[in-house]
Amino acid sequence: MQHNWLIQPCASLNETARRAALARQGQLTKPPGALGKLEGLAVQFAAFQGVAKPEVQRIHISIFAADHGVAAENVSLFPQAVTAEMVRNFARGGAAISVLAQHLNAALEVINLGTVSVVEPLKNVRDERIAAGTANFAQSAAMTQSQCQQALAAGRNAALRAQQNGAQLFIGGEMGIANTTSASALACALLNESSQKLAGAGTGLDAAGISHKAQIIAAALALHALLPSPIGKWSRGAGAHVTSQEVLRCLGGFEIAGLAGAYIAAAQQGLPILVDGFISSVAALVAVRINPSARDWMLFAHTSAEGGHQRVLDALAAQPLLQLGMRLGEGSGAAVAVPLIQLACSLHSGMATFAEAGVSEQH
Amino acid sequence: MQHNWLIQPCASLNETARRAALARQGQLTKPPGALGKLEGLAVQFAAFQGVAKPEVQRIHISIFAADHGVAAENVSLFPQAVTAEMVRNFARGGAAISVLAQHLNAALEVINLGTVSVVEPLKNVRDERIAAGTANFAQSAAMTQSQCQQALAAGRNAALRAQQNGAQLFIGGEMGIANTTSASALACALLNESSQKLAGAGTGLDAAGISHKAQIIAAALALHALLPSPIGKWSRGAGAHVTSQEVLRCLGGFEIAGLAGAYIAAAQQGLPILVDGFISSVAALVAVRINPSARDWMLFAHTSAEGGHQRVLDALAAQPLLQLGMRLGEGSGAAVAVPLIQLACSLHSGMATFAEAGVSEQH
Repeated sequence: MQHNWLIQPCASLNETARRAALARQGQLTKPPGALGKLEGLAVQFAAFQGVAKPEVQRIHISIFAADHGVAAENVSLFPQAVTAEMVRNFARGGAAISVLAQHLNAALEVINLGTVSVVEPLKNVRDERIAAGTANFAQSAAMTQSQCQQALAAGRNAALRAQQNGAQLFIGGEMGIANTTSASALACALLNESSQKLAGAGTGLDAAGISHKAQIIAAALALHALLPSPIGKWSRGAGAHVTSQEVLRCLGGFEIAGLAGAYIAAAQQGLPILVDGFISSVAALVAVRINPSARDWMLFAHTSAEGGHQRVLDALAAQPLLQLGMRLGEGSGAAVAVPLIQLACSLHSGMATFAEAGVSEQH
Repeated sequence: MQHNWLIQPCASLNETARRAALARQGQLTKPPGALGKLEGLAVQFAAFQGVAKPEVQRIHISIFAADHGVAAENVSLFPQAVTAEMVRNFARGGAAISVLAQHLNAALEVINLGTVSVVEPLKNVRDERIAAGTANFAQSAAMTQSQCQQALAAGRNAALRAQQNGAQLFIGGEMGIANTTSASALACALLNESSQKLAGAGTGLDAAGISHKAQIIAAALALHALLPSPIGKWSRGAGAHVTSQEVLRCLGGFEIAGLAGAYIAAAQQGLPILVDGFISSVAALVAVRINPSARDWMLFAHTSAEGGHQRVLDALAAQPLLQLGMRLGEGSGAAVAVPLIQLACSLHSGMATFAEAGVSEQH
């Protein structure tokens, strides 16, 4: 398989529909702008869907699960077994995202890209294990070239399935013990920031735990010659060309690569993306660095309680819809934001205009 | 009718159910606290409903509509006729709150407490007109004692209807051209703040319009001897006892009094309240000043774009769920927040515990 699919152009937004939707917003029975961010959301979906009155009913949620070699460095409060245990919990309906998907009547699939332990066949779980977790990036590159491409392609396939099933919104989620460590390391390398700034509490580390995590990340950045430097070049040297995909390969996880691949492919197909929290946003950053026009198809659901999230959102010029202090992952924050999008579209499409309602306009 | 109903005690929250819900939150398959504000919401509803697994399906929305004499002072961009026109729009399904109520399958009623023009009989609109608008509070008290009590009682009746219909959540909304002027004046008097600080754009005034509005309010505060003073006493004098109900009578509107009465009665019956934006929050402040324990039954939906809202929220120690820059009123911001409450309860009640799911707990 050719892997230049990653840099193929993304779909174009329909600017005619956007203008028509903007004009309609100005005619609805409310003061201009009075619905705040909901107005822009509806207009954005008009541009996504190429229609004057968008609707968002069919939601596709793909959760990518994988283990991380760096879990051996004692960077998480939870044992690695939890990744596979949560795959079972997703499938059986007990996890947060399972409950949310049912409430939203969303399609939910889990893609196992590499838990350490084998998981028995389960409904709605796809066994696409690349390896028994990534390698420990504190010692070597997390993935081989081939593994990284395989994970990106698995994400692409998830987005293609969503599109084939008629999805109007794609949500990616992730599960992987230690994956905030991987995501923070990626963010440090891509944003030229220190690990002290971007390492966070993850599932609930205390200050000492966060400090240890930051040290592990800093050492790994040095090992891979990806330390930030004052001139904004990686320490591989000013002359060295290091691609974002190479950064992903060294520091990422299968599930983060899966998300990045899914986002790029969704954008190429014109399928709007609702990005979840910290790890998903780092995957979105990877995707945008590989294929900048993918950004056009991304909306951001919420600001996570994870410390580094705001910095990543800023780098993506993202203005999330919700600030609820969530930090669970699994796509849960994105799922919680779905009703806002649905209500925004309902208001846009269902409200009367001043003329229809016989309501006087402003002086 | 005796009007001491206003100070009768509010219902008690069920602290046993709150503790049980808190304990359950700690057992669900997620890191503690990872669902952020959604966790506290579910626990709060457990205490409201006295059950371990709350649900919020039946929503009652009462919109109070009335005109304001102070509209004569050129404080709004829209003509006064819009109040009655919007009553029709609510009833016919074209207004924002109509669309939201339908989407949420919520019961919606409109109570006309005093539009200037008579509105023909309409489905779901109750004609309870007290007068053809309030008096212009820039010249005299907005309401007589009797009118103010009548408006408060109309609110109480709405809350009683909601309770009788089995509502699990009460949302109040308002419509009244010039009512941000009334609400800002009330907030100035109750919070001892200047009108320069609390007057805002309303439906979209520019800086000159806001300045004019602040001057009208300042003059009215002086007229009613309710100007803020450095010692935190109204200018009626240190010896004068001015009740919050008297402030409401001088500066309020029928719909604001209706909301305040509804909030107090809902709290007395143990019916949780979701407060909308600026005007509703000022009504909530009036309610809490009259009957402090009403605060226990209030949740706050969103921070409005209206300038003075944050100050009012701070006075109520309120931490709203949403920050979407909305400023429409009608209960619309509260309606938009309803799915968050429903999802919070679904997560709380539907997620598996660590034991149920066979997921390992933290080290």
